[in-house]
Amino acid sequence: MTLFDESEYLERLGKTKTRMADAGIDVLVASDPANMNYLTGYDGWSFYVPQCVVVSLDADTPLWIGRGMDVAGARHTTFLPEADIIGYPDHYVQTLARHPMNFVGDMIAERGWGAKTVGVEMDAYYFSARAYAELQKHLPNARFANADLLVNWVRLIKSDAEIVIMRQAGQIANRVMTTAIDRLEPGVRECDAVAAVYQAQMSGTEAFGGDYPAIVPMMPTGEKTSAPHLTWTDAPYENEQMVNLELAACRHRYHCPIARTAYLGKNPPAKLVELAAHTVEGLDLTLAAIKPGMRAEAVEQVWRKHMAKVGLEKESRIGYAMGLNYPPDWGEHTASLRPGDQTVLEPNMTFHMILGMWMDDYGFECSESFRVSGDGCETFADVPRKLFVKA
Amino acid sequence: MTLFDESEYLERLGKTKTRMADAGIDVLVASDPANMNYLTGYDGWSFYVPQCVVVSLDADTPLWIGRGMDVAGARHTTFLPEADIIGYPDHYVQTLARHPMNFVGDMIAERGWGAKTVGVEMDAYYFSARAYAELQKHLPNARFANADLLVNWVRLIKSDAEIVIMRQAGQIANRVMTTAIDRLEPGVRECDAVAAVYQAQMSGTEAFGGDYPAIVPMMPTGEKTSAPHLTWTDAPYENEQMVNLELAACRHRYHCPIARTAYLGKNPPAKLVELAAHTVEGLDLTLAAIKPGMRAEAVEQVWRKHMAKVGLEKESRIGYAMGLNYPPDWGEHTASLRPGDQTVLEPNMTFHMILGMWMDDYGFECSESFRVSGDGCETFADVPRKLFVKA
Repeated sequence: MTLFDESEYLERLGKTKTRMADAGIDVLVASDPANMNYLTGYDGWSFYVPQCVVVSLDADTPLWIGRGMDVAGARHTTFLPEADIIGYPDHYVQTLARHPMNFVGDMIAERGWGAKTVGVEMDAYYFSARAYAELQKHLPNARFANADLLVNWVRLIKSDAEIVIMRQAGQIANRVMTTAIDRLEPGVRECDAVAAVYQAQMSGTEAFGGDYPAIVPMMPTGEKTSAPHLTWTDAPYENEQMVNLELAACRHRYHCPIARTAYLGKNPPAKLVELAAHTVEGLDLTLAAIKPGMRAEAVEQVWRKHMAKVGLEKESRIGYAMGLNYPPDWGEHTASLRPGDQTVLEPNMTFHMILGMWMDDYGFECSESFRVSGDGCETFADVPRKLFVKA
Repeated sequence: MTLFDESEYLERLGKTKTRMADAGIDVLVASDPANMNYLTGYDGWSFYVPQCVVVSLDADTPLWIGRGMDVAGARHTTFLPEADIIGYPDHYVQTLARHPMNFVGDMIAERGWGAKTVGVEMDAYYFSARAYAELQKHLPNARFANADLLVNWVRLIKSDAEIVIMRQAGQIANRVMTTAIDRLEPGVRECDAVAAVYQAQMSGTEAFGGDYPAIVPMMPTGEKTSAPHLTWTDAPYENEQMVNLELAACRHRYHCPIARTAYLGKNPPAKLVELAAHTVEGLDLTLAAIKPGMRAEAVEQVWRKHMAKVGLEKESRIGYAMGLNYPPDWGEHTASLRPGDQTVLEPNMTFHMILGMWMDDYGFECSESFRVSGDGCETFADVPRKLFVKA
């Protein structure tokens, strides 16, 4: 009961193996839950214990190795044959006496891969320092190589089937953002506005439901707009204040992030209105300039030149690859729309372009998630690009 | 604007330093976001980039080191003086050329701690294999020690101020579970029931709002009850089916997990009704037996003996320490209610006792979150312990 056809997973595995061979890696231990899902279909909230997918150049299908109690979930969500789904006993869980990665090492050795070059995702969220040390202990004859982001780079270009899911996430995103803007009023507690956003994220549309996004809703106001990663309180929103809305919708683990800015009150400062106009114009222009064959850095250049005309500059990147993911981040950590990024855009690469302009005591942000199409780009959501003033 | 008084953070630091000294650790690099919060108050969704709190035996207050853009959040949520809040430049983020832990190493060396014994949390979720390697690179003269769970063990015994927050989480948990049971009906889509749960989690009560729990709602039904970590779909709940509800409420990052079982339909199987009665009786008895001074394993013995009388046995542990936490887990990974755990219960230790009995094609679970009190235990939530039959 995989989300996609088995042929799609085999194609992904094929591309992964090509990259492995190019990097001199014989056996890949993928611990990133998004990569595990991408390669096998596996989807469960079980990444709080060590688990992985093992891809070997000399095996047709990968191994799924996880906690014994999650074997049923792997049977349910992956295309793998029974023999390739392996659970470790519960006495490996959360103890100093042994570690699940010892078990993984043993499984790799048992299959005759113990003296191969083993690629590990050195900077993946759930591959801890100890996980690496314990894997090495049980594979004393292996050579280790850093395979961080190897699968992520394969993920960058989506299949048409993935795009269908991302369009659904886009439809949910419309509802999520509209709900947020509708719910924002002076006097409404931040937690209640956030509750409405969560409600919309999960209920989705009449036709299909939503999934949990990899990042919680961010809806800061007042002085907290300068602290981008603080979450909500139960204080009420105030009148004549700006609210940043950094939200997302998720469908089958595929994301459509979306950001807007709202102003609660009758009197948005003229400088904010002006900044909003420049930023939205820049977003429109930059999206319109996107073409396959263009480099990622060239996209950023379009934006940079536009803003320079009005005497403004944004220091950080203006976008990043995104798609399938798990907490704590929906970004894919590969291509970015920023100076120096030479990635050549290809159809079905998917990005979140987020233009946030922060001045001393005000700011404006507006974003779109899009795919590169055959001759331009296609945005997934459809919410007006503007400063929402709620008088 | 810390959640607790500065004196409380200083007390936590004092206890942490005692444990560090006992373990021969001079400098502790705490990357676990719960430990960072516990030691300084820091609370933000920024753990998707490397960050840490550095505690040195020879410094009164710790350093907070994180991404430059999160410095404002650290100022807002910690008690630390400005000089102890250090942001790394954005060119350290997500690149192979350098790593934030290089910067952390440099800061440690700059303070004259470069040849000390440095404790790192080897199995913490967001301390990656590469983070450790990169920290070592910039501290070539340091000795490294495993400080995994060192702060977690301090967290095990809550202060009275923490208990106040956990009681609030308990009040939200009542609403969360009641909402879930109310919303469950044959024909309701799983995603819509989950949406109502999220709504209740964040809205909290009239007096105070809720925070995001470290684990998403789990409400499996049908054949998926045997796969404990699969999340929801948009399929409707069916008639004459069992639903497991593993939920939680969170307040200021403190959790109150709560589990119940519901049966949708008029005809719950007699064997399920009987199992529920035995399990609830066992839960009641086991909670009633808890006293400070008792060992964790002895709590499990009470349950085990009760179930043996009716010819049943549960293989896994029946509870674990919990409290302050971030995704992907609300458990503290320290004391467990299981055979062999010699932890002596003390007042204000907090646990989630979860009794799940799984047969071939049915099962029942019921749980309570509680603190050990002066003469027994106090549960945080107040939802009837029973099989909820929704005819």
